[in-house]
Amino acid sequence: MNFHVMTLFPEMIRQAMGESITGRAIREGYISLDVVNIRDFAENKHNRVDDYPYGGGAGMVMQAGPVYSCYQSVCEGIRKEQGGDSGRKVRVIYLTPQGKVFHQGMAQELAQEEELVFLCGHYEGIDERVLEKIVTDPVSIGDYVLTGGELPALVMMDAISRLVPGVLNNDLSAETESFSGSLLEYPQYTRPEEWMGEKVPPVLLSGHHKNIAAWYREQSILRTARLRPDLLEKAELTPEEREWVKGQ
Amino acid sequence: MNFHVMTLFPEMIRQAMGESITGRAIREGYISLDVVNIRDFAENKHNRVDDYPYGGGAGMVMQAGPVYSCYQSVCEGIRKEQGGDSGRKVRVIYLTPQGKVFHQGMAQELAQEEELVFLCGHYEGIDERVLEKIVTDPVSIGDYVLTGGELPALVMMDAISRLVPGVLNNDLSAETESFSGSLLEYPQYTRPEEWMGEKVPPVLLSGHHKNIAAWYREQSILRTARLRPDLLEKAELTPEEREWVKGQ
Repeated sequence: MNFHVMTLFPEMIRQAMGESITGRAIREGYISLDVVNIRDFAENKHNRVDDYPYGGGAGMVMQAGPVYSCYQSVCEGIRKEQGGDSGRKVRVIYLTPQGKVFHQGMAQELAQEEELVFLCGHYEGIDERVLEKIVTDPVSIGDYVLTGGELPALVMMDAISRLVPGVLNNDLSAETESFSGSLLEYPQYTRPEEWMGEKVPPVLLSGHHKNIAAWYREQSILRTARLRPDLLEKAELTPEEREWVKGQ
Repeated sequence: MNFHVMTLFPEMIRQAMGESITGRAIREGYISLDVVNIRDFAENKHNRVDDYPYGGGAGMVMQAGPVYSCYQSVCEGIRKEQGGDSGRKVRVIYLTPQGKVFHQGMAQELAQEEELVFLCGHYEGIDERVLEKIVTDPVSIGDYVLTGGELPALVMMDAISRLVPGVLNNDLSAETESFSGSLLEYPQYTRPEEWMGEKVPPVLLSGHHKNIAAWYREQSILRTARLRPDLLEKAELTPEEREWVKGQ
């Protein structure tokens, strides 16, 4: 998976992606990160890439020209890397509250791509004309307003990276957790056995794998029913489980 | 607004919050950022804060002890800052897929607080017993799985910061944009007037403020109807607008 990020804050992207699990994945070659500063494509000597919006209104708007030149440079890089034009249009994700809302299924789908380009807006937005020309996937990470597209791009790259084979040490990890089966995860406990008077649930100490698995499943269903009933409707439950949870 | 972040990756939090709009808000004193490394509260000489989960399963779980000591240290700092115990329990937000889904209304509500503590998990999660003891608000930023709580904490702090008076240069900016009235934002244009054969919509060049405002409103409603019909249902539309958009 090769990530390409068009941004005005390249250091923020590099620093965050260089930490922890994504950092290790980059060093070990499972993913790569190419960060391009849109400001390098400014068309004036002041290095400005924004201007006042037509029609008035607060804030500044990023201009079409620098964004488009930056995009062309990223595409050129991909073509060279792949040895000639593959003929396939690369997917360009624009982070915007106007986009389709990101979810785990979208992360799984995007994790199949070889190249992904992220365009991070700032200020009040980007000139609509260049968005219409280059963006294939407008995406929102949720119904809230942020100061720029960098954090949402990082969130998406994090969610996608961990689905790329090899990135998580243990493939089991990605499989068994939250949302995999539309159920929330069960509670976790580690040492000590007793902490501030609170004990680990005895079944987890029993060594009886079948009972433990049943307890995990039960806890997941109960939690989902209590905290996210909307997810439970879509979850894959047996008819017995559906009956049982109704009685809780 | 004073943010306190409990994390294993303090540099990631400091770097991202130090950039752009939040960075300026910190330097100008509108918000403050206190980042505490949970690892500093490890209870063994190897500085480990995680251990195997009881009951088996993949991954590691963060231990209750270090998290609780870190929390006590943060609370102690807040008490000193405020000159004695205010008697009020500080809100502790735990970033987890099990949480209530973050949205703009929650950002507005949290922006009223003086102190907010964020607890960022990593690995497979945190021992349930300490979560039960200290967490007041379990929050999820969306239905996807991430490698840790740092990016969601940054997303929340970004969304909340920009609602703190003084953080955005122009208060109009926070008011008129996406989700304020449950409508998506209209398209934006800036110079040049013609770019790659595409012209700015003539109304925006007319100087006729009433027509421009009407066009903005129309575009917002059309976009919301096309891209997020779920938001349109909750939007504040006049009966005429609701009739009109049906006909589109």
